[in-house]
Amino acid sequence: MILVRQEIGDVLRDFRLQKGRTLRQVASKASVALGYLSEVERGQKEASSEILASVADALDVPISIIMREVGDRISVLEGIQVFPDVVPDDLVASVEPELSLR
Amino acid sequence: MILVRQEIGDVLRDFRLQKGRTLRQVASKASVALGYLSEVERGQKEASSEILASVADALDVPISIIMREVGDRISVLEGIQVFPDVVPDDLVASVEPELSLR
Repeated sequence: MILVRQEIGDVLRDFRLQKGRTLRQVASKASVALGYLSEVERGQKEASSEILASVADALDVPISIIMREVGDRISVLEGIQVFPDVVPDDLVASVEPELSLR
Repeated sequence: MILVRQEIGDVLRDFRLQKGRTLRQVASKASVALGYLSEVERGQKEASSEILASVADALDVPISIIMREVGDRISVLEGIQVFPDVVPDDLVASVEPELSLR
């Protein structure tokens, strides 16, 4: 079963690390307990909508960006392609030979 | 403050209505109490990740589609454009005159 809280936790942690902030800094700015934020990041606790809004604000990341990233990651888990590749491989190779090496 | 549960509730209800199902049918299939599902749809209760997975399954809608729709709706609330219009208006008018009437 795909658990949304697991993906939300991963996305929050990834944004936090990308911005070079510590758990302590974000927890403090968002006014949530450090242990609680840590559990949310590890997918062990459901974050309430209020906590989510507060953490997103502390990270300076719009909630929409967080939720879309969550949706994108879950789509990979569900095996749903976001942008199906409809360009024939040989056409790609003729236009961009270096791409066919990937 | 933008509350994710409000958007999740709206999206779940919209998908349910789009598929012509009643609260009772979805609650029963998802094995959740009808009153609880109703509160989730109205944004009054946070759905746990397990409940969300169960309701998504009962609706035959992948969770990724639900979360992306939630992200898209929140982006509108946040005033973030998904696809910025970068085509000059006069170019649009020259190619598709009827579009400039919108």
